[in-house]
Amino acid sequence: MGPGPVNAHPRVLRAMSADLLGQFDPEMTAYMNEVMALYRPIFGTRNAQTFLIDGTARAGIEAALVSLVAPGDTVLVVNFGRFGLLLGEILGRIGAKIETVEARWGEVVPLDVIEDALKRVRPKVVATIHGDTSTTMAQPLEGFGALCRQYGALSYVDATATIGGMEIAADRWEVDVVSGGLQKCLGGPSGSAPITVSEAAAAHIFARRHVERGIARDDIDDGDGPRILSNYFDLAMVMDYWSDKRLNHHTEATSMLYGARECARVVLQEGLERRYTRHRAAGAAVTAGARALGLEVFGDDAHRMTNVTGLVIPTGVDGEAVRKRMREDFEIEIGTAFGPLQGKVWRIGAMGYNAAKHKVLITLGALETVLRMEGFTCPPGAGVEAALAAWNAELAA
Amino acid sequence: MGPGPVNAHPRVLRAMSADLLGQFDPEMTAYMNEVMALYRPIFGTRNAQTFLIDGTARAGIEAALVSLVAPGDTVLVVNFGRFGLLLGEILGRIGAKIETVEARWGEVVPLDVIEDALKRVRPKVVATIHGDTSTTMAQPLEGFGALCRQYGALSYVDATATIGGMEIAADRWEVDVVSGGLQKCLGGPSGSAPITVSEAAAAHIFARRHVERGIARDDIDDGDGPRILSNYFDLAMVMDYWSDKRLNHHTEATSMLYGARECARVVLQEGLERRYTRHRAAGAAVTAGARALGLEVFGDDAHRMTNVTGLVIPTGVDGEAVRKRMREDFEIEIGTAFGPLQGKVWRIGAMGYNAAKHKVLITLGALETVLRMEGFTCPPGAGVEAALAAWNAELAA
Repeated sequence: MGPGPVNAHPRVLRAMSADLLGQFDPEMTAYMNEVMALYRPIFGTRNAQTFLIDGTARAGIEAALVSLVAPGDTVLVVNFGRFGLLLGEILGRIGAKIETVEARWGEVVPLDVIEDALKRVRPKVVATIHGDTSTTMAQPLEGFGALCRQYGALSYVDATATIGGMEIAADRWEVDVVSGGLQKCLGGPSGSAPITVSEAAAAHIFARRHVERGIARDDIDDGDGPRILSNYFDLAMVMDYWSDKRLNHHTEATSMLYGARECARVVLQEGLERRYTRHRAAGAAVTAGARALGLEVFGDDAHRMTNVTGLVIPTGVDGEAVRKRMREDFEIEIGTAFGPLQGKVWRIGAMGYNAAKHKVLITLGALETVLRMEGFTCPPGAGVEAALAAWNAELAA
Repeated sequence: MGPGPVNAHPRVLRAMSADLLGQFDPEMTAYMNEVMALYRPIFGTRNAQTFLIDGTARAGIEAALVSLVAPGDTVLVVNFGRFGLLLGEILGRIGAKIETVEARWGEVVPLDVIEDALKRVRPKVVATIHGDTSTTMAQPLEGFGALCRQYGALSYVDATATIGGMEIAADRWEVDVVSGGLQKCLGGPSGSAPITVSEAAAAHIFARRHVERGIARDDIDDGDGPRILSNYFDLAMVMDYWSDKRLNHHTEATSMLYGARECARVVLQEGLERRYTRHRAAGAAVTAGARALGLEVFGDDAHRMTNVTGLVIPTGVDGEAVRKRMREDFEIEIGTAFGPLQGKVWRIGAMGYNAAKHKVLITLGALETVLRMEGFTCPPGAGVEAALAAWNAELAA
């Protein structure tokens, strides 16, 4: 019950052990096409270019940024936590000129602050995080992509921590590139990063296409734009591989593709709306349960992620001792925190397969016992009861 | 029976479906340490820094090169096929000054040619491929690393196509960095790249260490060297993550780690010598069988990889028609070729779980039938019999 990776859905784990296929076997390329179709509704998009990056969620972020941004390009980073900082770290290595608008950890960046920065710095690309697990905040994105387009910028959103748990609406937000990972609300293992690329962003990236000498073909031309700094993360090449051209790039990670496919099938069979409601119920239950135990919930109520909740470690309680007892006595992992929140906050996730009523209730029951053993007085039974009531209220709403 | 990816070992596939673990769970970090120990003998090394890159074999190549090489560094590429060209492609994007020594496709580069180039260009790094599946040639590496060290250069070898099938002797070769992939002779799925880094190379890379702002710690200092151009492939950060420091980087791809671990366990249980002999037998059997069918075997006999064999497509035979019949009538995939060999050569792999006597014999029997149906006259039964004899002779040797 940490902020991810979480337990994978059993169907996803079983899919991982299917026999491999040759990378250009028609059965394999049919699976690739199916994966593209499955992830479009999950991203809330009709983008043709919707596929997988073979690496963890962080690989998806780097692939997006290194393909969108050339050295010297100005990029506006909307930063409200550790993963906002990560965007800057990656962009710095690309040689981008980085401008930042920031919120304190526990808050988000208002749209008008972003607009002011757009006017001021006129970036080529704007990059942000949807849900930053380090602070448990979700940046509001309605109107975000449209605003970027108004000022001539392409936009990128990292949705690793929200995809499959909170609504991703790439088309309605008018965002150009969104990437994610399997290991949180999609209920799979880390190691594959679904990504979607708008037509405008794909054109921008194809203008930087550079086909390897070893596999050059007459029907595919190089672009005039500056070469993408990475070969592995060159989305022009990866898109050519996932297209009917099937231009050889890396060898697709077959087992991870099976896993990503099954994640999406499980999500769509449950239904996106039902799934988002389940995550909202889980977040409401953790929040209500923690408050009933007398704990303070971290961060701005109005912009909290539904699938991870920060609990302020009470004065006098040893946060690591609590986590150790949770793990050793109850086999439940809860999260620590990074940077300014380290030692100050626990993070309780309820993601994907773990966003289940019984798991939330069991976690709060265990937490109550452990808190008492660590010297924190809390009303017996109140956490679990409040959580159950909040779960049911959210489902009835 | 292509040049990879190939069928994975059933034990590896089953390992992929094990339950996930939290990334800092003591059970998980113990598995990480076990993986490090398992891959040392497979790389023929005592390097402490032996671990996995979370991506395909190509990710391992890029991680090695981007971490070793800074923009403007001179790199000598020893190139004898498509993957030698790939090294140049990756290095070009890093901004390296690339010098090349080359062999024609089907040959390798003599050590004295490499030495002449070392004297002339004084590179910081020398990069080559052990077995280049595009040409089926294996570059001889005895003395290679020592020679590079003599001229003050670090050395890198891509062993994707040979690891687990031909001997890798990182320490005896005195090579600094070697990387591989699971999807060929290790008998696993694509998506994880084992890598080993010498003490000298690790020191060189740690001098470029740059810890992310979001996770900075007092006990870990940044280096003075030029920043590594990639965050995901920053081996200083990845080594800190795999060390006792456990400095958070990306979320380890848990299922792929289980697969990589099981690949290594299967390899070491068979025994490295027995395994290399089995691959030699398979290569000898394919070669003898093809010649008995009247086919020409591509490339220099003295430097052929044992686990993939190039067969020259006879004049008048439609190479793609043969591959289609093999796949559709016999469910056997054989490889096409790239670049100058496209349409001229088939490549038959016998790698890892596929380097089995019965699979080689069945493939040659099928090929005989298909060749005849495509109008090529060949002596009935001769291929299979010659292959069987060659297999047995190699094992008896």
